[in-house]
Amino acid sequence: MSFRIERAVRFDEIDAAGLVFFPRFLAYCHEAMEDFFGGVDGGYVGLIRDKRVGFPAVHLTTDFRAPLRYGDVAAITLVVTKVGTTSCTFRYEISRAWDGFVVAVAEHVCVCTDLDAMAKLPLPDDVRALLTRHLVTA
Amino acid sequence: MSFRIERAVRFDEIDAAGLVFFPRFLAYCHEAMEDFFGGVDGGYVGLIRDKRVGFPAVHLTTDFRAPLRYGDVAAITLVVTKVGTTSCTFRYEISRAWDGFVVAVAEHVCVCTDLDAMAKLPLPDDVRALLTRHLVTA
Amino acid sequence: MSFRIERAVRFDEIDAAGLVFFPRFLAYCHEAMEDFFGGVDGGYVGLIRDKRVGFPAVHLTTDFRAPLRYGDVAAITLVVTKVGTTSCTFRYEISRAWDGFVVAVAEHVCVCTDLDAMAKLPLPDDVRALLTRHLVTA
Amino acid sequence: MSFRIERAVRFDEIDAAGLVFFPRFLAYCHEAMEDFFGGVDGGYVGLIRDKRVGFPAVHLTTDFRAPLRYGDVAAITLVVTKVGTTSCTFRYEISRAWDGFVVAVAEHVCVCTDLDAMAKLPLPDDVRALLTRHLVTA
Repeated sequence: MSFRIERAVRFDEIDAAGLVFFPRFLAYCHEAMEDFFGGVDGGYVGLIRDKRVGFPAVHLTTDFRAPLRYGDVAAITLVVTKVGTTSCTFRYEISRAWDGFVVAVAEHVCVCTDLDAMAKLPLPDDVRALLTRHLVTA
Repeated sequence: MSFRIERAVRFDEIDAAGLVFFPRFLAYCHEAMEDFFGGVDGGYVGLIRDKRVGFPAVHLTTDFRAPLRYGDVAAITLVVTKVGTTSCTFRYEISRAWDGFVVAVAEHVCVCTDLDAMAKLPLPDDVRALLTRHLVTA
Repeated sequence: MSFRIERAVRFDEIDAAGLVFFPRFLAYCHEAMEDFFGGVDGGYVGLIRDKRVGFPAVHLTTDFRAPLRYGDVAAITLVVTKVGTTSCTFRYEISRAWDGFVVAVAEHVCVCTDLDAMAKLPLPDDVRALLTRHLVTA
Repeated sequence: MSFRIERAVRFDEIDAAGLVFFPRFLAYCHEAMEDFFGGVDGGYVGLIRDKRVGFPAVHLTTDFRAPLRYGDVAAITLVVTKVGTTSCTFRYEISRAWDGFVVAVAEHVCVCTDLDAMAKLPLPDDVRALLTRHLVTA
């Protein structure tokens, strides 16, 4: 089961080449991830702010196939491709909403982390359940 | 005595109109302020991170006279126009480095704040001394 | 008649003091303005990208009354306070959605501009009509 | 021959977890790349703005080994690992300046692109010469 958000490219997300700046694609993926965590009680805010549990990236791979421009709406589709003990892997497809063309694909490995101790944590049960519901197998 | 930094407009600071996005002018001013606080032991990092003393904006006035573009180097000149008990006022001029043309002027009132209690604080002595050294009178 | 958007504070909009970085408040206002221009055919994208008509800021005044934090949803309410020949003035209130507390008020004077010639333009008729529909008088 | 820049983590580059937001690491790499292109006449600005030649990312791989925090200075070291006909590959190491600890490594494949036609271009001779001077072989 995939999770999907849509968001318009904002006026200030354009670079001097007139295209969405490439690191911003990853911020779009992170927005999808933030919203995805709405599936646990308290959401990403509750995890980060209240429980001090975060998911720092440890590995990232991205293919960029086409640019995004001002006027495009980006659709970001998230699936989970791996659920480990302390880590998980998200896969994102970013497409242009109007024609569905996939402009980028990203794989993003995160490690569940105690933000105060900066130490690995086992995935909390509710997070594991949420991830598992969105797990796909290749 | 004024304090001055120069920094090139970055590739990703341009908006869809091809100009530096106007809130970014204020981020440039804040960069000058961060560097200005290098004049106290530990700098702005020491204040924010170690002492948990911050300077949230309470009032801001900005005149924009000309755009900045990719390829411009911004020169930001900071002076202090008021030193109160718990607050201070900075005045910034942003100019294009190559011809000195003033593209924006900003006035920025900050309140010295205990970031944990989110309560006003008297300006620390070293900060007050630094501010006073850069105080100009109209 | 006011125009209103709501948007959650994003994970990456926080600064080292743990608060929404103050220039970002103005980016929130600009987001409201972008969406407000959805009231003309083609929206802000059509103006900027297709007609090359922009609205650079010439003057900005902002009062900040309280911080925003991660977990807050910002409600941005826009009204028009002046419609001139080539310029217009927006007034924004940013409040916390959960309790309606007004955290910032901004006044933003823009000049209608031919982005290729970088010269003032009379407000297009459809823009003037939209502005006039949201004009309030003090 | 490697190319190196240092830049302090800025106040507004921190996220709600108190760490530098991970897409920002890529923006740091891009800053190094912008400065690296200072090795051709006109620099990156001349390429992008005047010649309308850009280098959009087509592939990106990043390993994150440790966070960056406010107060850190990031040192970004760039080498070129491949020079093709129309593409090139950069490798970046981001380290903390104070102890040299490598916090991230990124590989970034770019395609030389006519920004008006959005079509691949052979690498210009001066760019190729610059890349070749920084080429390392594994």
